[in-house]
Amino acid sequence: METQPARGMRDFLPDDVRRREHVVGVIRDVYDRYGFEPLETPAVENIETLLGKYGDEGGKLIFKILKRGDHESSGQADLALRYDLTVPLARVVAEYQAKLPKFFKRYQIQPVWRAERPARGRFREFYQCDIDSIGSVSPVVEAEQIAAVSEILTALGFKNFVIRLNHRGVLTSMLTTSGVPEPLHGETLTALDKRDKIGEDGVELELKQRGLDRSTIDRLLAITAFLPAAVDPFEELDTLERKIGEDPRGASALNNLREIFQLSTSTGAGHLLLDKSLARGLSYYTGAIMEVGVRHLPGSLGGGGRYDNLIGMFSGDSVPACGFSLGLERILVVMQEREMFPAFIERSSIDVVVAAIDLTAQVTMMETAASLRKLPRLRVDVYPEVVKKMDKLFRHVDQRKARFLAILGGNEVADGTVSIRDVATRKQETIPRDTLAAYLASRLTTND
Amino acid sequence: METQPARGMRDFLPDDVRRREHVVGVIRDVYDRYGFEPLETPAVENIETLLGKYGDEGGKLIFKILKRGDHESSGQADLALRYDLTVPLARVVAEYQAKLPKFFKRYQIQPVWRAERPARGRFREFYQCDIDSIGSVSPVVEAEQIAAVSEILTALGFKNFVIRLNHRGVLTSMLTTSGVPEPLHGETLTALDKRDKIGEDGVELELKQRGLDRSTIDRLLAITAFLPAAVDPFEELDTLERKIGEDPRGASALNNLREIFQLSTSTGAGHLLLDKSLARGLSYYTGAIMEVGVRHLPGSLGGGGRYDNLIGMFSGDSVPACGFSLGLERILVVMQEREMFPAFIERSSIDVVVAAIDLTAQVTMMETAASLRKLPRLRVDVYPEVVKKMDKLFRHVDQRKARFLAILGGNEVADGTVSIRDVATRKQETIPRDTLAAYLASRLTTND
Repeated sequence: METQPARGMRDFLPDDVRRREHVVGVIRDVYDRYGFEPLETPAVENIETLLGKYGDEGGKLIFKILKRGDHESSGQADLALRYDLTVPLARVVAEYQAKLPKFFKRYQIQPVWRAERPARGRFREFYQCDIDSIGSVSPVVEAEQIAAVSEILTALGFKNFVIRLNHRGVLTSMLTTSGVPEPLHGETLTALDKRDKIGEDGVELELKQRGLDRSTIDRLLAITAFLPAAVDPFEELDTLERKIGEDPRGASALNNLREIFQLSTSTGAGHLLLDKSLARGLSYYTGAIMEVGVRHLPGSLGGGGRYDNLIGMFSGDSVPACGFSLGLERILVVMQEREMFPAFIERSSIDVVVAAIDLTAQVTMMETAASLRKLPRLRVDVYPEVVKKMDKLFRHVDQRKARFLAILGGNEVADGTVSIRDVATRKQETIPRDTLAAYLASRLTTND
Repeated sequence: METQPARGMRDFLPDDVRRREHVVGVIRDVYDRYGFEPLETPAVENIETLLGKYGDEGGKLIFKILKRGDHESSGQADLALRYDLTVPLARVVAEYQAKLPKFFKRYQIQPVWRAERPARGRFREFYQCDIDSIGSVSPVVEAEQIAAVSEILTALGFKNFVIRLNHRGVLTSMLTTSGVPEPLHGETLTALDKRDKIGEDGVELELKQRGLDRSTIDRLLAITAFLPAAVDPFEELDTLERKIGEDPRGASALNNLREIFQLSTSTGAGHLLLDKSLARGLSYYTGAIMEVGVRHLPGSLGGGGRYDNLIGMFSGDSVPACGFSLGLERILVVMQEREMFPAFIERSSIDVVVAAIDLTAQVTMMETAASLRKLPRLRVDVYPEVVKKMDKLFRHVDQRKARFLAILGGNEVADGTVSIRDVATRKQETIPRDTLAAYLASRLTTND
């Protein structure tokens, strides 16, 4: 009988869950402290809520749920699995308008499902960690999201990360100023966006194939050239101002970026830089766009931007919004490859196993475990069976990755003692039972 | 356009999520400290994994997912939504046998989906919180689960709860001894199980209708009569021993219960009592059964028992197991009705909102927020727009349930001060900006 998880889905064994929970815990803590509020929506949505929201390609990837009962044989679907966290947010904003604050900042950390062809690092069930700030067009919103993301990555132990910032208005203005005809804007940006992967020459070739002439390409590559990080963003914005400042859209976009940089001076600005070539999937962004990555590591750990025309899709209102999505699965892969998880997560799953070598010692074993479980954060296992062979017990202790083993027999019960064994050093000593909690507390701290 | 969640599903707004997270956090913490390890499985399983596992009625409630692409028009389903956490556990145990410890203790807190007719307190997406201990038939397993559940309920603030304990062998033996013919055992237990709801007379009537004679019913009601909690369980076990001790199955079950009570003396035994009439859905239980409830409150908060023939369903091995499932949704309803959530969850979602009344003060606003966000657990919001009308700001602060409001204008920036307002008392004072963190830290602690 098949016992693997379904294609593209994953089981998370305890070590996996602990790593995931660690990362999610850090993310949640920072978002809480930044005043974002938690939201959760159902895994299952009415199919009409999702259809038509993700383009032709996206629509094909939606998992659809069969109608039930007598309708089952009709093959019709009335429900579907959540495909992202943005459409449910738009639905929630429309449904609970009266209950939500005008400036609503929410985070949502939940799985989504997409029927993509599974590949390395691509799954059919994966978590999204989204923040969105609804209701304001102020650059304070972007600056606050940048600060929060920066704090999360720092808290997770990332050092060489950069948050690249650009603006859709700057891009449009640069394309227009360079002479790229409007109908070619989309394709041109797609090509520029690949500069990381295919290099300057690759971009040039693609642009030629799309029909841009030599001088347009030169102007475009010059104006969007990636900056060395050392360049002061305000200087660079001034330089750009001289090139696209005549275009009102360009001027206003540069102004917006300038404000975001100014508001960010005190908050993680060390990681923030202007990247004129950053494009992202531009279809719905309307203002600033941002992407976070680690230096010398291809791909991104997350990204976002302003999208002022999407959240109102259900209510019909125009609702300004800006969001940032962290890629949990990608962050986990990088942290694992770089061994960035704190020692306490990798090292052990159990602090102490309490075991009885006589049936009569089992009641004392339970008492001892109960008193240890009163200590905060100490993880205590009891060995369920009376120990007959010590090797079996030692194997259990190894399998559980326990750090200490407390052994009780008839003698220990009578004497009021316990034998305590350090699993790593194999040293064993007998101590008074009422000192065990203090003993473990000190040993587990000093060994940390 | 429809913006409600799908039928029987729920959106959880921030206050809901915080309450749920609080309860889940307590459950997770206790299970961690008891050495249970976290497991997560995908929401979506291959349909063959689930079909045939939940009986005819259960099978109809499974949400099935349409095959994708060209197969979509066939109306065939190849996947299905998780229906419980036990079948996935059995699959995991079979699949990762070599990786898992012989005595595997896991907890799993995830949603399941059932296409039931929605009703008060019954949803189509709801969380299960399961623990299961795999690999041992020792009564230490039952005692440990009882202790953990008892500690969870105590930590959540429940006081008058009782964990009722019985044994399938005791039930069978009581029925046999009372003269209930074997083929009527199932129906008889179903009737007995309703004693809580329909009373002794109701049970009597049902048993008559099922064909039991007067004297059998009398013997049965006498032998299963519910005990006043004051009775010592060991005495009661001795009394029962005299009635069913001749039957080997009865004797061995009583022995098992005696051991569980003995092992529980140090761990939450104050809440544990013998309930000879407890039956539960008996189909797969093979040993001890338990159920936790609150005195004077109908229904249970969770239950479980030993089921030694289920976990091996995929591997074909016989794998002993014992599990306990807490009903998260029910616990939440009771806690809300009885106002049991800690004040810090109900009271506020934000500790302080920082606002600028001049555009030039926004950079200082971001700096101030950044310094406050360095404090652990302080939740800090910034007001995104330059304040033009104070009422609007006050309304925002109310909507966010903030406790303090820090206001910055040109004067404050120049003076190095900040105006701080206590939202509840409306008292406002101006203090040096570098004392703000200490001010809030002391005010928020003393007000707790």
